[in-house]
Amino acid sequence: MRNMIIASTSTIHGSSYLAYLLPDILKAFKINDIKNLLFIPYARPGGISHDSYTDKVREAFKDTGVTVKGIHEYENTQDAIKNAQAIFTGGGNTFVLVKALHDLHLMETLRKQIYAGTFYIGTSAGSNICGLNMRNTNDMPIVMPASFKTTGAIGYNINAHYLDPDTDSTHMGETREERIKEFHFYNNLPVVGLREGSYIRVTDKEELLCGPHTARVFTKDNEAIEVNSGYDFAQLSN
Amino acid sequence: MRNMIIASTSTIHGSSYLAYLLPDILKAFKINDIKNLLFIPYARPGGISHDSYTDKVREAFKDTGVTVKGIHEYENTQDAIKNAQAIFTGGGNTFVLVKALHDLHLMETLRKQIYAGTFYIGTSAGSNICGLNMRNTNDMPIVMPASFKTTGAIGYNINAHYLDPDTDSTHMGETREERIKEFHFYNNLPVVGLREGSYIRVTDKEELLCGPHTARVFTKDNEAIEVNSGYDFAQLSN
Repeated sequence: MRNMIIASTSTIHGSSYLAYLLPDILKAFKINDIKNLLFIPYARPGGISHDSYTDKVREAFKDTGVTVKGIHEYENTQDAIKNAQAIFTGGGNTFVLVKALHDLHLMETLRKQIYAGTFYIGTSAGSNICGLNMRNTNDMPIVMPASFKTTGAIGYNINAHYLDPDTDSTHMGETREERIKEFHFYNNLPVVGLREGSYIRVTDKEELLCGPHTARVFTKDNEAIEVNSGYDFAQLSN
Repeated sequence: MRNMIIASTSTIHGSSYLAYLLPDILKAFKINDIKNLLFIPYARPGGISHDSYTDKVREAFKDTGVTVKGIHEYENTQDAIKNAQAIFTGGGNTFVLVKALHDLHLMETLRKQIYAGTFYIGTSAGSNICGLNMRNTNDMPIVMPASFKTTGAIGYNINAHYLDPDTDSTHMGETREERIKEFHFYNNLPVVGLREGSYIRVTDKEELLCGPHTARVFTKDNEAIEVNSGYDFAQLSN
């Protein structure tokens, strides 16, 4: 009975934080009578404090009737997750986020609550932890987590902020597609390249692509394919 | 008595593999009477075989009188490094390279030989391992190494293929500079952003910037600075 929004990015260029996602989030909150949101700020973009990051989310939800509380405000973080009506994990650095979740033994708790039906929202790093491991993050390994394993709330990995190759570039660094192809020399998991503005709406057994863009699906030993809005990613796990 | 070339990239756009570095490499080989080069192909760009990757290096050195042998061709890899006249570690994926070096217990051996004066050439991932750890790689964490620690042949980290922010971009992913700034929330090591075409020529106590570009130096709690060709990075370790 999963109920999730897994988004490539929190923010679309030229728009405010979470603005493009808010209508769908609030629709789900209304249906499920959700009034309180637990925010996980551990990915700490730009190294900002957990308080400042939580304030940013509070600001996005002001005038909506939703109360936002940061997990760092709780004495018992396990209970905070277990008792949450809805959980939102924000973006930042995936290594920093995954290290914190493992250090606090919260990864498994998060997985259980997602499968138990707690509404979950992830953006960027918060979406990377929905896959089976964090091996497709674009982030810099600025800290070392105990493990790259993540929640496995979906049966494939996400590459957030997916970028198409820049055909005009003279830069010799690998393209995103090349990096994901290298992943498949060592791993046999599907990877979904989610462009900014795209998100996956997970409800029970459906995992639908939403937003204006196609997404790019990479599987081992196959050419990557483009899938349209409405595509059900659940079939990747079969 | 270190003697090293630490390069951002193996290849400049529009030029052949190692071409721009070869004159300086061959000059050093002549001075030090080096006829044999040990190649470390473990970073495996694009997942190619160790043999194919070594052949590529052999091709670059053909007609130079230098014999190239891959470390994977040796029964005893420790001895291969200890007995090498010169060592070249090629680029690819830094996580894959560092995992292999730790799994084979070669990181410390490499460090010792570099400090003992064995001529060392690194490009890209092969340069990332010259720093104290691999926490400034741009690569995707497609495998998990035992540790992020690297050789510490220099007293700072390298960010290879350094890219300036694209001011026209609407992409919301972090710029390279933002990623390195986040590194400095958790680490207190200088980081050198080496643009493609730049390399550091290490001889004894000097660590000089070579090539046509400036380099960008990042230190904790300071604004990044640009340094010119001829700058001595050794002062960063003082």
